[in-house]
Amino acid sequence: MSALADFRAELVERGWLLVDRDGLVAGTGDPLERVVAGLVAAIDDVSAQAGRPVQRVRFAPVTGQQLLEQTGYHTSFPQLIGVVHGLPRDASARRRVPEGEAWDHDFGRSGFGLVPSACHPLYAWLRGTQVTGTAYTLTGDCFRNEPSEDPFRRVSFRMREVVVLGTPAQAREHQRVWRSAGLALYRSLGLQVHDAAANDPFFGRQGAMLANNQRDEQLKFEFVVEPVPGHEVAIGSANYHEDHFGVDFAMTTPDGQPAHSACYGMGLERTALALAATHGFDPGRWPDEVRVALRLS
Amino acid sequence: MSALADFRAELVERGWLLVDRDGLVAGTGDPLERVVAGLVAAIDDVSAQAGRPVQRVRFAPVTGQQLLEQTGYHTSFPQLIGVVHGLPRDASARRRVPEGEAWDHDFGRSGFGLVPSACHPLYAWLRGTQVTGTAYTLTGDCFRNEPSEDPFRRVSFRMREVVVLGTPAQAREHQRVWRSAGLALYRSLGLQVHDAAANDPFFGRQGAMLANNQRDEQLKFEFVVEPVPGHEVAIGSANYHEDHFGVDFAMTTPDGQPAHSACYGMGLERTALALAATHGFDPGRWPDEVRVALRLS
Repeated sequence: MSALADFRAELVERGWLLVDRDGLVAGTGDPLERVVAGLVAAIDDVSAQAGRPVQRVRFAPVTGQQLLEQTGYHTSFPQLIGVVHGLPRDASARRRVPEGEAWDHDFGRSGFGLVPSACHPLYAWLRGTQVTGTAYTLTGDCFRNEPSEDPFRRVSFRMREVVVLGTPAQAREHQRVWRSAGLALYRSLGLQVHDAAANDPFFGRQGAMLANNQRDEQLKFEFVVEPVPGHEVAIGSANYHEDHFGVDFAMTTPDGQPAHSACYGMGLERTALALAATHGFDPGRWPDEVRVALRLS
Repeated sequence: MSALADFRAELVERGWLLVDRDGLVAGTGDPLERVVAGLVAAIDDVSAQAGRPVQRVRFAPVTGQQLLEQTGYHTSFPQLIGVVHGLPRDASARRRVPEGEAWDHDFGRSGFGLVPSACHPLYAWLRGTQVTGTAYTLTGDCFRNEPSEDPFRRVSFRMREVVVLGTPAQAREHQRVWRSAGLALYRSLGLQVHDAAANDPFFGRQGAMLANNQRDEQLKFEFVVEPVPGHEVAIGSANYHEDHFGVDFAMTTPDGQPAHSACYGMGLERTALALAATHGFDPGRWPDEVRVALRLS
């Protein structure tokens, strides 16, 4: 077995990941859940130290399918998208399914899609409003249609985000603060992390051109670890979106200009797994300072 | 406006529910999230008092589509199901979407479906194993394809469950304890709740016959409130499934018999909204004993 397959097998054995015999159940067990709760609390601690008031919001894993268009996700990452199909509203509800026939052959678009990135519904909610530099924090379930045996690459995963919408200066400052604070947070947890300028063509319609600029402009920093030898993983990022979401969702600052936005995002399962790879599978035996930061008893 | 529409408008106005201009964003704001966190803690308190060790697990909102068949949900409630469609694996990833053409016309079944009831992935995970009366607790996101203006009836909602799998005696006892403890919990929060024997044809293939028996056998008790005059809502239930899931998922007790199961489930958003209807929209001003039980400061 490869080192990655070994690591996955041990995650299942130790109750971190729950899979059924088809490998399809995407569950997580008690030790991982305790670590995830601790990571969320640690991010909230950093936010509190920054002094800016943070508003907590939460969005469901399912959203209106059109959000996937409004963000340009449908052209940037169509292969990762999941849209939801169901029975037409006027279909008779109870029915018998003939043996051997697919029971969903008459399903069609329901109008719902799966959220691909935790902060997207936030912009849809704020669409057409004035924003003033408020920070929002949320945990969102994300769906990416890329089944894999890699335990760091899950079809459904949770992302914790802290997002600021406001002036260019407010957004840039948010990215600057979290680039530094994010790095410090990971290192305080004993993770050997480096930050790397990255590109990520989430910029919809303008596509590849902006993706190239992104690296030059340092719009995206990823926090990268190597939990398994030879296997680098990004466990978070600090991003400055310029006016991308501000324009697409008609959000403006008080002076009438398009809002700029920035976000810090942590992949919760990924970070928890990186901690397991670093400190072992029993959080109760992790170094004192890590247990304190993550409220592990 | 009806009383229900008035209530919904106030939930949006007070930041409990977050909707965009299309009404499609299913978000929840800070006050509701604080109450939901308190409800989860209060359920854990009840579990701890019962003395039985409880194992925490968590399942993603997305599961293998076949789970919908294994539970019989595809014949019992086909109209509520959501299955996930995506691009075929071999589709070229990046592409241009011709103006006016649906960008998902070539999507097909991805093999994933949305979890309809929080405890179902638990049975898939435990399939083929021996169970010994362990209690599992989890918060799960559920999808029901029934868009509605009723704030108590959300397409995507969270359910907290405490499930026991074991002998018939263990499962019956779990239902008995939680029928009483659930009622006491709601009443301690100031909710005027009554419990009602109910039926719920989740029993798959055998369908209607079992649904009738269910009421006679008292397999399902719902906790019912009337948060808005004339609008009764079930905010939880205590259920005894007999060997339904034990047989379908080949779970056995140490003596080789099919496992029996029982669950207590609380609709988290529903219960939080019922509390808002009862105590008002500012949790900081709720009665002392309710704030203490829900850790509201």
